[in-house]
Amino acid sequence: MATPHLHSGEVSNLLAPEGQLLAVPAHALFKDEHLEVILMNLMQGKSLPSHHVHGPITIQCLSGEVQVELQAGPKTMHAGDLLYLAAGLRHAVVAISNTSFLVTIVLLKAVA
Amino acid sequence: MATPHLHSGEVSNLLAPEGQLLAVPAHALFKDEHLEVILMNLMQGKSLPSHHVHGPITIQCLSGEVQVELQAGPKTMHAGDLLYLAAGLRHAVVAISNTSFLVTIVLLKAVA
Repeated sequence: MATPHLHSGEVSNLLAPEGQLLAVPAHALFKDEHLEVILMNLMQGKSLPSHHVHGPITIQCLSGEVQVELQAGPKTMHAGDLLYLAAGLRHAVVAISNTSFLVTIVLLKAVA
Repeated sequence: MATPHLHSGEVSNLLAPEGQLLAVPAHALFKDEHLEVILMNLMQGKSLPSHHVHGPITIQCLSGEVQVELQAGPKTMHAGDLLYLAAGLRHAVVAISNTSFLVTIVLLKAVA
């Protein structure tokens, strides 16, 4: 986690020391033309308002519990859980406990 | 892991029971037009020959140890490690111990 951006061929460890949460709420691991990976660290009760992105994404819970609110209802995720969201799906996020999760976003051009 | 494919808005747990390795070597969690996520389970000593894909990928080690061989040299990954590979980068994979890892692939059209 020392380098601000991961270059192709580089390895980064995603796991914070046991019981700790990294101080930075959002750490962009890397972003290239087609793919962006962000490590999110949210304290209990913090949330991300409803939003969507143009490409498909995955949200992977690494520690703690995070709730993803979808139009179809909420999904509670624990460590090891992966959620797939098709392109454009609106979602909000709430940290049920201190949580870290990985967001992987395919970058597609917006269609006007 | 009961469903063969994850639909948008569905959650799947990636973690095998402690010390166990799922019997299926490659489990495609989902594949849509732009994104594919595969859970790989390799027994110690098993390998994937050198190959490349057209889009950028990430490899995330979930358990055990896996070595990714790149032109620049080998990278050994442990649980929690994420490796980013730019589009088209050749790589081979060797399981140093029984290992599971997640492969996230952006699906780009091949350029002739």
